[in-house]
Amino acid sequence: MATVKLWTDEEAAADPRVSAVFEEIRAARKSTFINNFWRALANQPDQLERTWASLKAVMMAPGALDPLTRELLYIAVSTANGCGYCIHSHTAAARAKGMTEAQHAELTAIIAMASQTNALATALQIPIDPEFEI
Amino acid sequence: MATVKLWTDEEAAADPRVSAVFEEIRAARKSTFINNFWRALANQPDQLERTWASLKAVMMAPGALDPLTRELLYIAVSTANGCGYCIHSHTAAARAKGMTEAQHAELTAIIAMASQTNALATALQIPIDPEFEI
Amino acid sequence: MATVKLWTDEEAAADPRVSAVFEEIRAARKSTFINNFWRALANQPDQLERTWASLKAVMMAPGALDPLTRELLYIAVSTANGCGYCIHSHTAAARAKGMTEAQHAELTAIIAMASQTNALATALQIPIDPEFEI
Amino acid sequence: MATVKLWTDEEAAADPRVSAVFEEIRAARKSTFINNFWRALANQPDQLERTWASLKAVMMAPGALDPLTRELLYIAVSTANGCGYCIHSHTAAARAKGMTEAQHAELTAIIAMASQTNALATALQIPIDPEFEI
Amino acid sequence: MATVKLWTDEEAAADPRVSAVFEEIRAARKSTFINNFWRALANQPDQLERTWASLKAVMMAPGALDPLTRELLYIAVSTANGCGYCIHSHTAAARAKGMTEAQHAELTAIIAMASQTNALATALQIPIDPEFEI
Amino acid sequence: MATVKLWTDEEAAADPRVSAVFEEIRAARKSTFINNFWRALANQPDQLERTWASLKAVMMAPGALDPLTRELLYIAVSTANGCGYCIHSHTAAARAKGMTEAQHAELTAIIAMASQTNALATALQIPIDPEFEI
Repeated sequence: MATVKLWTDEEAAADPRVSAVFEEIRAARKSTFINNFWRALANQPDQLERTWASLKAVMMAPGALDPLTRELLYIAVSTANGCGYCIHSHTAAARAKGMTEAQHAELTAIIAMASQTNALATALQIPIDPEFEI
Repeated sequence: MATVKLWTDEEAAADPRVSAVFEEIRAARKSTFINNFWRALANQPDQLERTWASLKAVMMAPGALDPLTRELLYIAVSTANGCGYCIHSHTAAARAKGMTEAQHAELTAIIAMASQTNALATALQIPIDPEFEI
Repeated sequence: MATVKLWTDEEAAADPRVSAVFEEIRAARKSTFINNFWRALANQPDQLERTWASLKAVMMAPGALDPLTRELLYIAVSTANGCGYCIHSHTAAARAKGMTEAQHAELTAIIAMASQTNALATALQIPIDPEFEI
Repeated sequence: MATVKLWTDEEAAADPRVSAVFEEIRAARKSTFINNFWRALANQPDQLERTWASLKAVMMAPGALDPLTRELLYIAVSTANGCGYCIHSHTAAARAKGMTEAQHAELTAIIAMASQTNALATALQIPIDPEFEI
Repeated sequence: MATVKLWTDEEAAADPRVSAVFEEIRAARKSTFINNFWRALANQPDQLERTWASLKAVMMAPGALDPLTRELLYIAVSTANGCGYCIHSHTAAARAKGMTEAQHAELTAIIAMASQTNALATALQIPIDPEFEI
Repeated sequence: MATVKLWTDEEAAADPRVSAVFEEIRAARKSTFINNFWRALANQPDQLERTWASLKAVMMAPGALDPLTRELLYIAVSTANGCGYCIHSHTAAARAKGMTEAQHAELTAIIAMASQTNALATALQIPIDPEFEI
């Protein structure tokens, strides 16, 4: 259960700001599906607009990293932050963008490896080598 | 300051297990530089051998993700886990593997974006959409 | 499911230490409702007494921050720590203390904003400005 | 040391996008001081503009929470996320907005209290009470 | 729901690498029960073999810490990392190795205490005493 | 640098509440050394007294876990929470209580192992086995 109301399509349609963002999401994704994240953010139209605008800029605009790599990074961060919802939604998004099971397996192996050496470096309080300074 | 001794080259050379791993690291990286992480792990030869073996398998073996993407993922996880040492060492490694400043900028933008929506999804306790189930 | 037994009212009534804390909670909240957190802590009377005493001192005693602000801070920390139970219980508590939906929306926007810049400052390993030293 | 260059005033002045944001920050804060966070973000003009725009909207626009409460929340999240830079910069900002030492003491007591009960609720995997459902 | 398939006994039996690890787990634990963690890792035979080999070395080999202490440490880390699955599986494992309810109560009290002082030390950005240097 | 003043011995001696706690700490530890954590908490006498009282109860009272095991657990939690100060102070405390280098090596190996499997269980969103229910 969420701590806020999840907006239905009818409620969204009745609010011009929410409705405008939902239509943009549907157009961008070429799908009528609106996931719960956006239905929850609809309670906060400012935050809804700002989050969608940032997401378009960061995840969809042409750039130096390809769309699948961006999704893999999203899954990595979401895992380290322990966000179950985000892991589910971005694993689905990555698969929709072509992530193979072999890539998923390597992704999770890297997340596990990094988590392990992060813990070791922290436990041992290892000082940063001067060679790493820019 | 570390919570354990950082082994010097002389100390490492005197221990066959440590010395063998250090030589492998130097050969794999085509460099004589051994960073503090390995000098700290040298106190625990079992952990040193196991960590290096896993790192080779996860980060260096041929696979479905290219070497630079793997480093970007390592930075992403290390950032979310707050490991300063790991961020420094893997940002340096990513640059050594060709990461451009534009790629680094996009990487940090994605980390920031994911951290933001992770926090929102958690604060609002958003339930997972059945559409995301496999 | 919890990893420990959740005490029923009958079980609590039969233990003088647990029963004394439960009665204090009911009196402080002017409600007969005892939430699962306390029913789980009942397995550890020392911890139950200590936690309730600290909570009274930190959250209920008169002080420099008003009761609603304290609840908003609790939600903020609980979100960053990823504690779903705590987010639910303290969002309910904040609403009971008068939190409006507009305040909740701003709260979550601040949590999201801070999470984003926390990630950026960490990813870029930004050194602390001398101007911030006290 | 940062993992990216920190822009000097001269470098910032030579870039119209960076320079425009720096001038806005100076005007908003009525101070010539630009802290390292913005000097690091200057490497990524898109991210610099987007972050400053969001920060203005979330932290400076009139709203339902007063400016000091917003800073206290920022410190709470930054502490739970372990961002030393952010703790320093927002503790300084909160003091500039009038935070007293008594308020700071209560803030840290609440952060500590929440961290403690977050850990207990997680360790005991306490199920959410139906009473907390909205 | 998992983000990957959970392998049934039949599927595992049909894959020699998965089947070999499952048999080792059953033999080590003197039980036919294979928990979901391993059924999920079965999708990644490399990761399955590597994780099981590490777990045997770290958790089961004779050493300087007794088996129950190792499980308590596992629960402590899993709690701080917010891994519900791991808290459940290792609390069960600790009980199977003889953890009493009194020990469990002390364990969670220590986790709560450490989480509290961790938060205080971080919020106050306390500098490390030179006396702690080795 | 801390975000609050660190009290000197002279300042502490002039405040009866702070002075009383410092004397108890010195007596309990049989040492005149007061580390920075307590010198920072001295700004908040309520929090100072409450934290010391809890620490005595949780870490020093006779119980079901021996003093060294308690310190190892403290290090484990502090590492997962990324508290550098706490890792340093409790690693020193554990050594003072007899932790050998072999025990420290095993401790960090377990922390690393748990961090790794925590990440895997989270990335794969593994459902809790009914067998783990109590």
